[in-house]
Amino acid sequence: MTKPAFIAVDWGTSSFRLWLIGEDGNILAERRSGEGMTTAAQAGFANILQAHLDAISAPLDLPVIVCGMAGARQGWVEAGYIDTPTSLAAILTGAVVVPGQSRDVRILPGLAQRAKDAPDVMRGEETQLLGAIAADAKGEQIVCMPGTHSKWVRVVDGRVTGFSTFMTGELFDVITKHSILSHAVAGAADMPADTTAFEAALKAAFEKPQLVTNLMFTARSGQLLHGTTAAGAQALISGTLIGAEIAGALSSAGQGAAITLVASGRLQTLYEEAFRSLSLPYQTIDADAAVRRGLSAAAEAIWLKNESKS
Amino acid sequence: MTKPAFIAVDWGTSSFRLWLIGEDGNILAERRSGEGMTTAAQAGFANILQAHLDAISAPLDLPVIVCGMAGARQGWVEAGYIDTPTSLAAILTGAVVVPGQSRDVRILPGLAQRAKDAPDVMRGEETQLLGAIAADAKGEQIVCMPGTHSKWVRVVDGRVTGFSTFMTGELFDVITKHSILSHAVAGAADMPADTTAFEAALKAAFEKPQLVTNLMFTARSGQLLHGTTAAGAQALISGTLIGAEIAGALSSAGQGAAITLVASGRLQTLYEEAFRSLSLPYQTIDADAAVRRGLSAAAEAIWLKNESKS
Repeated sequence: MTKPAFIAVDWGTSSFRLWLIGEDGNILAERRSGEGMTTAAQAGFANILQAHLDAISAPLDLPVIVCGMAGARQGWVEAGYIDTPTSLAAILTGAVVVPGQSRDVRILPGLAQRAKDAPDVMRGEETQLLGAIAADAKGEQIVCMPGTHSKWVRVVDGRVTGFSTFMTGELFDVITKHSILSHAVAGAADMPADTTAFEAALKAAFEKPQLVTNLMFTARSGQLLHGTTAAGAQALISGTLIGAEIAGALSSAGQGAAITLVASGRLQTLYEEAFRSLSLPYQTIDADAAVRRGLSAAAEAIWLKNESKS
Repeated sequence: MTKPAFIAVDWGTSSFRLWLIGEDGNILAERRSGEGMTTAAQAGFANILQAHLDAISAPLDLPVIVCGMAGARQGWVEAGYIDTPTSLAAILTGAVVVPGQSRDVRILPGLAQRAKDAPDVMRGEETQLLGAIAADAKGEQIVCMPGTHSKWVRVVDGRVTGFSTFMTGELFDVITKHSILSHAVAGAADMPADTTAFEAALKAAFEKPQLVTNLMFTARSGQLLHGTTAAGAQALISGTLIGAEIAGALSSAGQGAAITLVASGRLQTLYEEAFRSLSLPYQTIDADAAVRRGLSAAAEAIWLKNESKS
C-alpha cells in the first residue's frame, strides 16, 4: 500500500475539491463539495477542511497545499499575488502558511497583471497553468481556461507574459437568469443542446464581436418572429459570448500560436466545438488533472525537494 | 380655454405616461406613474387607464391613442408589427381598436425586422421616431434611442430601412446588480459620476469592442490592484457597454450619416458625452417631446384627418 504524501486542495468561490496524494503521485482518496469560499467564510475554513480530512482519515502530520479563492482577501488567509511577467515556478515561492493549524497548511498566491490600462488577476488558474505547461516549454503558447471568468494566458518560453479575463460564464449566468432573455431560455434545460444555433452564433460574434450586445437580443426577437426554441436561444447566447471571447482573446494574444485548452466536462465540449467551428488548432488538457499536477508540483517543491521525486 | 382633443399614452414595460392634448396641440394635463405593462397585466389595463382619466376629469367621449408594450402579446391587446423596410406613416394604418371600451381606444403597432440573420423588434420607439423624424426628410439619418434596450435606426428619405437593438441598459442593470461587479460598484450612487473613467472606458471599448467582456472585468481587477473607486467602476462598466454599442451600431449603419439622439435626462447627458468624446457629430431631440409628437401625429391621422390641423 502506497504511503500518503500530502493533501492537495483546490478551493474556489463555490467549490471545494480535495485529494489525498500518495508518495507515488497517485490519488488515494478524493472529496468534492459545494463548500467554496462563500460558504467557508461563514462556516469557517479550518472546520470545513478538518471535516473532509476526518472523512478520509488523513494522517495527522500530513501537510496540505491549497490554491484558489481561499487565498483571497475575503478568504482564509490572504496569499497575495505574484506579478507578471513571471515564471510559473515563482508562485511556489509565494505560498503562505496558515497560522495556528496543527498541521502544515499553505496557500498558493495568485497572479496579478498591474498594467494601468489592463489590470487583471487570477487565483487558482495559475496552479492549473503550472500543471498544464511544462516548465521547460519553448516558444509561445496561448492557454485558454474557460469558466465563470475565462482566463487566456500568453506563455513564452515557460514565462507568463500577460493574461486577460473574460466574464463569459458569469455573464451567461446573469443574462439567462435575470434579464428579459430568461423568458427566451425557459425550458432549455429539458431540451437537447442546439449545436447548429451555437455554431451560427459563435461565428457571427467571432466575425463581428462589436455586435455582441445586439446579437444576444436576437434570442428574444428570433423567438417573437421566427419561433426560435428555448434550446436555440440558450445556444445563441452561449455561442455569442464565447465567439466574442475568442475574438477578443486572439486580438490581444495574436493568432499565430497554438491554443492549449485547459477544461473538463461541459465546458471542454463547448470550447472544443468552438475551436473546431472556427478552424483554430488546439490541444486539450484536462482541467482537473492540471490543477492536481500543479498542486503536486508545489507540494514537491515545498516539502519534498530534498527527497527523491516519485 | 382650449378644448381637449385626445389623450396620448406611452405605456412601456415599467412606466405609464399620459397627456391630455388640446385642439391647439398643447398639453392640458399630464400623468406619470410606474404602472407599466408588468403592473397592468395584474391590475388590469382598463382600470389603470380609467383611474388616470378620472384624475384629470377627461371628457367621456375623448379618444385615446396608445403606444408601447400595452400592444405586446403579454399586453392589453396585441397590436402586431409593421415590417421593415417601411415608411413611418405606415404604423398609423396598423392601430388596433381595444374592444369593449366606452371610448375609442387604439394601440399603435411596433416595427419588426424579419431578416433571418438579424431579427429585431421595437414597440414604442417607432412612435418616438415618427415624432422625431420629419416624414418628408431627405437623405440618410441614423437615429439612436438609448434605454434598457437601445435602438439604432437607419432612415433613408423618411423610410426605415433597418434597425438594431443593443441590450446596453439592461446589461448594465443585471451586471451591476447580480454579478461579481456588484461589489465593485457598491456605494457609487452616493458619489459624483467619474466622467474621466467613463470616457476612458468608452474609448477603449469603441476601439476594441471585441474586448467588451474583458474590459468590464477591469472594474474588479482595477479595484483590487489600483484602488478604483465605486464611482470609477460604475463609470467603467457604463462606458464599456456604451462604447461597444456605438461601435456596433456604426459598423452596421455606416459612419457617414449624422446621428440623431432621441433621449432625455441622464441618458441624454451620457450619450451626448459619449458622442462628443468620440468626435461624432450629433443632434439631440427630446425623447418625451418626440413620443408626444408621434402620438399626436397618429391621433390627427386617425381622428382629425377631415378637420383642419392645429
